[in-house]
Amino acid sequence: MYRDGTIAKYLDDAAAGIPAPGGGSISAFAGALATTMGSMAGNFTVGKKKFRDVEPQVKTIVDRLRALRMRLLEYTDADVDAYGVVSQAYGMPKDTPEEKSTRTAKIQEALVVAMAVPLKTVHTCAEVLGELAALVDLANPNLISDVGVSAILAEAALRGAKLNVEINLAYLKDAALVEATAAEVNALAADAAEACRGIVTTVEAKIKP
Amino acid sequence: MYRDGTIAKYLDDAAAGIPAPGGGSISAFAGALATTMGSMAGNFTVGKKKFRDVEPQVKTIVDRLRALRMRLLEYTDADVDAYGVVSQAYGMPKDTPEEKSTRTAKIQEALVVAMAVPLKTVHTCAEVLGELAALVDLANPNLISDVGVSAILAEAALRGAKLNVEINLAYLKDAALVEATAAEVNALAADAAEACRGIVTTVEAKIKP
Repeated sequence: MYRDGTIAKYLDDAAAGIPAPGGGSISAFAGALATTMGSMAGNFTVGKKKFRDVEPQVKTIVDRLRALRMRLLEYTDADVDAYGVVSQAYGMPKDTPEEKSTRTAKIQEALVVAMAVPLKTVHTCAEVLGELAALVDLANPNLISDVGVSAILAEAALRGAKLNVEINLAYLKDAALVEATAAEVNALAADAAEACRGIVTTVEAKIKP
Repeated sequence: MYRDGTIAKYLDDAAAGIPAPGGGSISAFAGALATTMGSMAGNFTVGKKKFRDVEPQVKTIVDRLRALRMRLLEYTDADVDAYGVVSQAYGMPKDTPEEKSTRTAKIQEALVVAMAVPLKTVHTCAEVLGELAALVDLANPNLISDVGVSAILAEAALRGAKLNVEINLAYLKDAALVEATAAEVNALAADAAEACRGIVTTVEAKIKP
Protein backbone atom coordinates (compact mmCIF):
# COMPACT_ATOMS: atom_id res chain seq x y z
CA MET A 1 0.00 0.00 0.00
CA TYR A 2 1.60 3.18 -1.22
CA ARG A 3 -0.27 5.41 1.22
CA ASP A 4 1.68 3.92 4.11
CA GLY A 5 5.01 4.31 2.30
CA THR A 6 7.14 7.43 2.04
CA ILE A 7 6.47 10.24 -0.41
CA ALA A 8 9.93 9.76 -1.93
CA LYS A 9 9.23 6.06 -2.64
CA TYR A 10 5.87 6.71 -4.31
CA LEU A 11 7.32 9.44 -6.52
CA ASP A 12 10.41 7.35 -7.39
CA ASP A 13 8.24 4.40 -8.42
CA ALA A 14 5.90 6.64 -10.39
CA ALA A 15 8.78 8.25 -12.29
CA ALA A 16 10.54 4.96 -13.02
CA GLY A 17 10.29 2.85 -16.14
CA ILE A 18 7.85 0.44 -14.50
CA PRO A 19 4.15 0.36 -15.42
CA ALA A 20 2.64 1.24 -12.05
CA PRO A 21 1.85 3.56 -10.39
CA GLY A 22 0.72 5.25 -13.59
CA GLY A 23 -1.55 8.11 -14.55
CA GLY A 24 -4.66 6.61 -12.97
CA SER A 25 -3.03 6.22 -9.58
CA ILE A 26 -1.37 9.63 -9.73
CA SER A 27 -4.67 11.29 -10.65
CA ALA A 28 -6.47 9.66 -7.71
CA PHE A 29 -3.64 10.73 -5.44
CA ALA A 30 -3.78 14.30 -6.78
CA GLY A 31 -7.49 14.24 -5.90
CA ALA A 32 -6.66 13.13 -2.35
CA LEU A 33 -4.08 15.92 -2.15
CA ALA A 34 -6.70 18.40 -3.38
CA THR A 35 -9.13 17.56 -0.58
CA THR A 36 -6.59 18.40 2.13
CA MET A 37 -6.63 22.12 1.40
CA GLY A 38 -10.42 22.28 1.61
CA SER A 39 -10.22 20.32 4.86
CA MET A 40 -7.61 22.68 6.28
CA ALA A 41 -9.70 25.74 5.41
CA GLY A 42 -12.71 24.06 7.02
CA ASN A 43 -10.74 23.10 10.12
CA PHE A 44 -9.66 26.75 10.53
CA THR A 45 -13.31 27.79 10.39
CA VAL A 46 -14.86 25.29 12.80
CA GLY A 47 -14.51 26.25 16.47
CA LYS A 48 -14.07 29.97 15.79
CA LYS A 49 -16.65 32.31 17.34
CA LYS A 50 -16.71 34.47 14.23
CA PHE A 51 -17.94 31.59 12.08
CA ARG A 52 -20.31 30.01 14.60
CA ASP A 53 -23.33 30.52 12.34
CA VAL A 54 -21.90 28.38 9.56
CA GLU A 55 -20.20 25.82 11.80
CA PRO A 56 -22.68 22.95 11.27
CA GLN A 57 -22.43 23.24 7.47
CA VAL A 58 -18.64 23.54 7.52
CA LYS A 59 -18.35 20.55 9.86
CA THR A 60 -20.37 18.46 7.42
CA ILE A 61 -18.12 19.58 4.54
CA VAL A 62 -14.99 18.74 6.55
CA ASP A 63 -16.36 15.26 7.30
CA ARG A 64 -17.27 14.67 3.67
CA LEU A 65 -13.90 15.89 2.36
CA ARG A 66 -12.19 13.49 4.71
CA ALA A 67 -14.31 10.58 3.47
CA LEU A 68 -13.61 11.59 -0.14
CA ARG A 69 -9.88 11.71 0.62
CA MET A 70 -9.95 8.19 2.03
CA ARG A 71 -11.83 7.00 -1.05
CA LEU A 72 -9.30 8.64 -3.40
CA LEU A 73 -6.42 7.09 -1.49
CA GLU A 74 -8.07 3.69 -1.99
CA TYR A 75 -8.21 4.36 -5.73
CA THR A 76 -4.51 5.36 -5.65
CA ASP A 77 -3.71 1.78 -4.70
CA ALA A 78 -6.65 0.14 -6.56
CA ASP A 79 -5.44 1.58 -9.86
CA VAL A 80 -2.09 -0.18 -9.41
CA ASP A 81 -3.91 -3.49 -8.84
CA ALA A 82 -6.25 -2.96 -11.80
CA TYR A 83 -3.28 -2.38 -14.08
CA GLY A 84 -1.97 -5.80 -13.02
CA VAL A 85 -5.20 -7.47 -14.21
CA VAL A 86 -4.86 -5.90 -17.70
CA SER A 87 -1.18 -6.86 -17.90
CA GLN A 88 -2.04 -10.42 -16.98
CA ALA A 89 -4.69 -10.64 -19.72
CA TYR A 90 -2.23 -9.30 -22.33
CA GLY A 91 0.25 -11.95 -21.18
CA MET A 92 -2.10 -14.85 -21.96
CA PRO A 93 -1.07 -17.34 -24.70
CA LYS A 94 -2.22 -16.64 -28.27
CA ASP A 95 -0.92 -19.58 -30.26
CA THR A 96 -4.21 -21.16 -31.29
CA PRO A 97 -7.45 -19.50 -32.51
CA GLU A 98 -9.13 -20.61 -29.24
CA GLU A 99 -6.38 -19.09 -27.14
CA LYS A 100 -6.58 -15.92 -29.19
CA SER A 101 -10.31 -15.52 -28.69
CA THR A 102 -10.09 -16.31 -24.95
CA ARG A 103 -7.28 -13.78 -24.60
CA THR A 104 -9.22 -11.11 -26.48
CA ALA A 105 -12.27 -11.66 -24.27
CA LYS A 106 -10.16 -11.51 -21.10
CA ILE A 107 -8.46 -8.31 -22.25
CA GLN A 108 -11.85 -6.71 -22.89
CA GLU A 109 -13.06 -7.75 -19.43
CA ALA A 110 -9.87 -6.50 -17.80
CA LEU A 111 -10.12 -3.12 -19.57
CA VAL A 112 -13.63 -2.62 -18.20
CA VAL A 113 -12.38 -3.43 -14.69
CA ALA A 114 -9.33 -1.18 -15.11
CA MET A 115 -11.45 1.68 -16.44
CA ALA A 116 -13.75 1.51 -13.42
CA VAL A 117 -11.07 2.96 -11.12
CA PRO A 118 -10.35 6.24 -12.98
CA LEU A 119 -14.08 6.53 -13.68
CA LYS A 120 -14.71 6.44 -9.92
CA THR A 121 -11.93 9.01 -9.49
CA VAL A 122 -13.69 11.30 -11.98
CA HIS A 123 -16.94 11.00 -10.02
CA THR A 124 -15.24 11.47 -6.66
CA CYS A 125 -13.36 14.59 -7.78
CA ALA A 126 -16.67 15.99 -9.02
CA GLU A 127 -18.02 15.43 -5.49
CA VAL A 128 -14.97 17.22 -4.04
CA LEU A 129 -15.70 20.23 -6.24
CA GLY A 130 -19.31 20.17 -5.05
CA GLU A 131 -18.15 20.46 -1.44
CA LEU A 132 -15.67 23.23 -2.31
CA ALA A 133 -18.34 25.22 -4.16
CA ALA A 134 -20.24 25.38 -0.86
CA LEU A 135 -17.13 25.90 1.28
CA VAL A 136 -15.80 28.90 -0.67
CA ASP A 137 -18.68 31.03 0.62
CA LEU A 138 -18.42 29.80 4.22
CA ALA A 139 -14.72 29.33 4.98
CA ASN A 140 -12.50 31.59 7.05
CA PRO A 141 -11.34 34.16 4.44
CA ASN A 142 -7.76 33.94 5.76
CA LEU A 143 -7.57 30.53 4.12
CA ILE A 144 -9.40 31.38 0.94
CA SER A 145 -6.38 30.78 -1.31
CA ASP A 146 -6.24 27.23 0.05
CA VAL A 147 -9.82 26.62 -1.07
CA GLY A 148 -8.68 27.82 -4.50
CA VAL A 149 -5.70 25.44 -4.54
CA SER A 150 -8.08 22.65 -3.53
CA ALA A 151 -10.44 23.37 -6.43
CA ILE A 152 -7.68 23.75 -9.03
CA LEU A 153 -6.09 20.45 -8.02
CA ALA A 154 -9.42 18.62 -7.81
CA GLU A 155 -10.31 19.67 -11.33
CA ALA A 156 -6.85 18.70 -12.61
CA ALA A 157 -7.17 15.31 -10.89
CA LEU A 158 -10.55 14.82 -12.56
CA ARG A 159 -9.10 15.67 -15.97
CA GLY A 160 -6.15 13.34 -15.42
CA ALA A 161 -8.50 10.51 -14.45
CA LYS A 162 -10.63 11.29 -17.51
CA LEU A 163 -7.60 10.77 -19.79
CA ASN A 164 -7.12 7.39 -18.13
CA VAL A 165 -10.73 6.46 -18.80
CA GLU A 166 -10.29 7.54 -22.42
CA ILE A 167 -7.12 5.53 -22.99
CA ASN A 168 -9.09 2.43 -21.93
CA LEU A 169 -12.02 3.40 -24.17
CA ALA A 170 -9.64 3.46 -27.13
CA TYR A 171 -9.11 -0.31 -26.77
CA LEU A 172 -12.68 -1.28 -25.88
CA LYS A 173 -14.85 -2.88 -28.57
CA ASP A 174 -18.27 -2.46 -26.96
CA ALA A 175 -19.37 0.61 -28.94
CA ALA A 176 -22.38 1.37 -26.76
CA LEU A 177 -20.28 1.28 -23.57
CA VAL A 178 -17.61 3.44 -25.22
CA GLU A 179 -20.12 6.06 -26.30
CA ALA A 180 -21.95 6.17 -22.98
CA THR A 181 -18.75 6.38 -20.92
CA ALA A 182 -17.24 9.07 -23.16
CA ALA A 183 -20.40 11.14 -22.81
CA GLU A 184 -20.39 10.59 -19.03
CA VAL A 185 -16.82 11.81 -18.47
CA ASN A 186 -17.22 14.70 -20.90
CA ALA A 187 -20.28 15.93 -19.02
CA LEU A 188 -18.54 15.59 -15.64
CA ALA A 189 -15.44 17.40 -16.94
CA ALA A 190 -17.50 20.26 -18.34
CA ASP A 191 -19.35 20.67 -15.02
CA ALA A 192 -16.06 20.48 -13.12
CA ALA A 193 -14.46 23.16 -15.29
CA GLU A 194 -17.41 25.45 -14.63
CA ALA A 195 -17.40 24.73 -10.90
CA CYS A 196 -13.65 25.33 -10.68
CA ARG A 197 -13.90 28.60 -12.61
CA GLY A 198 -16.64 29.78 -10.25
CA ILE A 199 -14.67 28.88 -7.12
CA VAL A 200 -11.43 30.48 -8.38
CA THR A 201 -13.28 33.65 -9.41
CA THR A 202 -14.68 33.93 -5.88
CA VAL A 203 -11.25 33.24 -4.38
CA GLU A 204 -9.53 35.84 -6.59
CA ALA A 205 -12.19 38.41 -5.66
CA LYS A 206 -11.66 37.72 -1.93
CA ILE A 207 -7.86 37.90 -2.26
CA LYS A 208 -7.92 41.27 -4.01
CA PRO A 209 -10.14 43.43 -1.86
CA MET B 1 11.33 16.77 6.05
CA TYR B 2 7.97 15.72 4.70
CA ARG B 3 9.42 14.01 1.65
CA ASP B 4 10.94 11.30 3.85
CA GLY B 5 7.72 10.81 5.78
CA THR B 6 4.69 8.75 4.79
CA ILE B 7 2.05 9.95 2.36
CA ALA B 8 -0.62 9.46 5.02
CA LYS B 9 1.25 11.75 7.47
CA TYR B 10 1.74 14.55 4.93
CA LEU B 11 -1.93 14.46 3.91
CA ASP B 12 -3.12 14.29 7.53
CA ASP B 13 -1.01 17.32 8.49
CA ALA B 14 -2.12 19.22 5.41
CA ALA B 15 -5.80 18.56 6.14
CA ALA B 16 -5.53 19.42 9.83
CA GLY B 17 -6.28 22.73 11.52
CA ILE B 18 -2.59 23.65 11.68
CA PRO B 19 -1.06 26.32 9.43
CA ALA B 20 1.49 24.22 7.56
CA PRO B 21 1.78 22.48 5.17
CA GLY B 22 -0.50 24.93 3.37
CA GLY B 23 -1.36 25.76 -0.21
CA GLY B 24 2.19 26.74 -1.17
CA SER B 25 3.66 23.44 -0.03
CA ILE B 26 0.84 21.40 -1.57
CA SER B 27 1.23 23.23 -4.89
CA ALA B 28 4.98 22.53 -5.00
CA PHE B 29 4.27 18.91 -4.13
CA ALA B 30 1.64 18.68 -6.88
CA GLY B 31 4.32 19.96 -9.27
CA ALA B 32 6.70 17.22 -8.12
CA LEU B 33 3.92 14.68 -8.60
CA ALA B 34 3.30 16.08 -12.10
CA THR B 35 6.90 15.53 -13.20
CA THR B 36 6.75 11.80 -12.40
CA MET B 37 4.36 11.00 -15.23
CA GLY B 38 6.56 12.75 -17.80
CA SER B 39 9.54 10.89 -16.36
CA MET B 40 7.74 7.55 -16.61
CA ALA B 41 6.76 8.18 -20.23
CA GLY B 42 10.36 9.15 -20.98
CA ASN B 43 11.73 6.11 -19.18
CA PHE B 44 9.49 3.87 -21.31
CA THR B 45 10.90 5.51 -24.45
CA VAL B 46 14.63 5.41 -23.68
CA GLY B 47 16.28 2.06 -24.42
CA LYS B 48 13.64 0.97 -26.95
CA LYS B 49 14.87 0.25 -30.51
CA LYS B 50 11.77 1.86 -31.99
CA PHE B 51 12.61 5.22 -30.41
CA ARG B 52 16.38 5.13 -30.87
CA ASP B 53 16.36 8.26 -33.05
CA VAL B 54 14.90 10.42 -30.32
CA GLU B 55 16.72 8.77 -27.41
CA PRO B 56 19.28 11.54 -26.75
CA GLN B 57 16.55 14.20 -26.60
CA VAL B 58 14.29 12.08 -24.40
CA LYS B 59 17.18 11.24 -22.08
CA THR B 60 17.85 14.94 -21.60
CA ILE B 61 14.18 15.56 -20.84
CA VAL B 62 14.14 12.68 -18.31
CA ASP B 63 17.20 14.12 -16.57
CA ARG B 64 15.71 17.60 -16.48
CA LEU B 65 12.35 16.39 -15.19
CA ARG B 66 14.13 14.56 -12.39
CA ALA B 67 16.05 17.71 -11.44
CA LEU B 68 12.83 19.74 -11.52
CA ARG B 69 11.14 17.15 -9.28
CA MET B 70 13.94 17.43 -6.71
CA ARG B 71 13.66 21.21 -6.80
CA LEU B 72 9.87 21.09 -6.30
CA LEU B 73 10.27 18.68 -3.39
CA GLU B 74 12.66 21.17 -1.82
CA TYR B 75 10.01 23.88 -2.17
CA THR B 76 7.45 21.51 -0.58
CA ASP B 77 9.48 21.69 2.63
CA ALA B 78 10.80 25.25 2.12
CA ASP B 79 7.26 26.62 2.01
CA VAL B 80 6.57 25.17 5.45
CA ASP B 81 9.71 26.92 6.79
CA ALA B 82 8.86 30.21 5.08
CA TYR B 83 5.45 30.18 6.68
CA GLY B 84 7.17 29.94 10.04
CA VAL B 85 9.09 33.17 9.37
CA VAL B 86 5.87 35.07 8.61
CA SER B 87 4.15 33.65 11.70
CA GLN B 88 7.09 34.71 13.83
CA ALA B 89 6.95 38.28 12.48
CA TYR B 90 3.22 38.49 13.18
CA GLY B 91 3.94 37.29 16.72
CA MET B 92 6.28 40.22 17.50
CA PRO B 93 5.27 42.69 20.23
CA LYS B 94 3.28 45.75 19.17
CA ASP B 95 2.82 47.68 22.41
CA THR B 96 4.85 50.80 21.59
CA PRO B 97 5.04 52.80 18.34
CA GLU B 98 8.65 51.60 17.93
CA GLU B 99 7.64 47.96 18.35
CA LYS B 100 4.77 48.49 15.94
CA SER B 101 6.98 49.89 13.22
CA THR B 102 9.66 47.21 13.72
CA ARG B 103 6.98 44.54 13.55
CA THR B 104 5.46 46.02 10.39
CA ALA B 105 8.87 46.13 8.72
CA LYS B 106 9.63 42.53 9.75
CA ILE B 107 6.25 41.35 8.46
CA GLN B 108 6.91 43.03 5.12
CA GLU B 109 10.35 41.39 4.90
CA ALA B 110 8.93 38.00 5.87
CA LEU B 111 6.18 38.25 3.25
CA VAL B 112 8.77 38.86 0.53
CA VAL B 113 10.73 35.81 1.72
CA ALA B 114 7.56 33.71 1.96
CA MET B 115 6.40 34.76 -1.49
CA ALA B 116 9.71 33.72 -3.02
CA VAL B 117 8.90 30.03 -2.56
CA PRO B 118 5.60 29.86 -4.49
CA LEU B 119 7.12 32.23 -7.06
CA LYS B 120 9.90 29.72 -7.64
CA THR B 121 7.26 26.99 -7.86
CA VAL B 122 5.46 28.97 -10.58
CA HIS B 123 8.71 29.28 -12.57
CA THR B 124 9.65 25.64 -12.04
CA CYS B 125 6.24 24.35 -13.14
CA ALA B 126 6.58 26.52 -16.27
CA GLU B 127 9.88 24.72 -16.93
CA VAL B 128 8.16 21.36 -16.44
CA LEU B 129 5.59 22.31 -19.07
CA GLY B 130 8.41 23.31 -21.43
CA GLU B 131 9.92 19.82 -21.14
CA LEU B 132 6.51 18.18 -21.61
CA ALA B 133 5.79 20.24 -24.73
CA ALA B 134 8.88 18.65 -26.29
CA LEU B 135 8.21 15.20 -24.82
CA VAL B 136 4.66 14.88 -26.15
CA ASP B 137 5.99 14.61 -29.73
CA LEU B 138 8.78 12.18 -28.83
CA ALA B 139 7.43 9.82 -26.16
CA ASN B 140 6.32 6.23 -26.61
CA PRO B 141 2.65 6.66 -27.68
CA ASN B 142 1.59 3.86 -25.31
CA LEU B 143 2.24 6.30 -22.46
CA ILE B 144 0.79 9.38 -24.08
CA SER B 145 -2.04 9.73 -21.54
CA ASP B 146 0.61 9.93 -18.81
CA VAL B 147 2.23 12.90 -20.56
CA GLY B 148 -1.23 14.48 -20.54
CA VAL B 149 -1.68 13.83 -16.79
CA SER B 150 1.75 15.35 -16.23
CA ALA B 151 0.85 18.54 -18.10
CA ILE B 152 -2.55 18.94 -16.47
CA LEU B 153 -1.08 18.56 -12.98
CA ALA B 154 1.89 20.83 -13.72
CA GLU B 155 -0.41 23.60 -14.88
CA ALA B 156 -2.66 23.12 -11.84
CA ALA B 157 0.39 23.23 -9.56
CA LEU B 158 1.48 26.48 -11.23
CA ARG B 159 -1.96 28.01 -10.73
CA GLY B 160 -2.03 26.89 -7.10
CA ALA B 161 1.37 28.44 -6.48
CA LYS B 162 0.21 31.61 -8.25
CA LEU B 163 -2.67 31.96 -5.77
CA ASN B 164 -0.11 31.69 -2.98
CA VAL B 165 1.97 34.44 -4.53
CA GLU B 166 -1.15 36.58 -4.84
CA ILE B 167 -2.23 36.11 -1.23
CA ASN B 168 1.18 37.46 -0.19
CA LEU B 169 0.90 40.35 -2.65
CA ALA B 170 -2.36 41.36 -1.00
CA TYR B 171 -0.45 42.19 2.21
CA LEU B 172 2.63 43.74 0.62
CA LYS B 173 2.98 47.52 0.64
CA ASP B 174 5.72 47.94 -1.98
CA ALA B 175 3.47 48.89 -4.89
CA ALA B 176 6.16 48.52 -7.55
CA LEU B 177 7.05 45.02 -6.36
CA VAL B 178 3.36 44.07 -6.20
CA GLU B 179 2.71 45.26 -9.72
CA ALA B 180 5.80 43.61 -11.22
CA THR B 181 5.19 40.29 -9.46
CA ALA B 182 1.50 40.22 -10.40
CA ALA B 183 2.42 40.83 -14.04
CA GLU B 184 5.11 38.15 -13.87
CA VAL B 185 2.82 35.39 -12.54
CA ASN B 186 -0.02 36.40 -14.85
CA ALA B 187 2.25 36.09 -17.89
CA LEU B 188 3.61 32.72 -16.73
CA ALA B 189 0.09 31.43 -16.04
CA ALA B 190 -1.15 32.51 -19.47
CA ASP B 191 1.79 30.78 -21.18
CA ALA B 192 1.26 27.68 -19.05
CA ALA B 193 -2.44 27.51 -19.94
CA GLU B 194 -1.56 27.69 -23.62
CA ALA B 195 1.21 25.08 -23.31
CA CYS B 196 -1.09 22.74 -21.39
CA ARG B 197 -3.90 23.14 -23.92
CA GLY B 198 -1.46 22.32 -26.74
CA ILE B 199 -0.10 19.22 -24.99
CA VAL B 200 -3.55 17.91 -24.06
CA THR B 201 -4.83 18.48 -27.61
CA THR B 202 -1.93 16.40 -28.95
CA VAL B 203 -2.55 13.72 -26.32
CA GLU B 204 -6.27 13.54 -27.08
CA ALA B 205 -5.54 13.26 -30.81
CA LYS B 206 -3.10 10.40 -30.19
CA ILE B 207 -5.55 8.60 -27.89
CA LYS B 208 -8.42 8.73 -30.41
CA PRO B 209 -6.94 7.46 -33.65
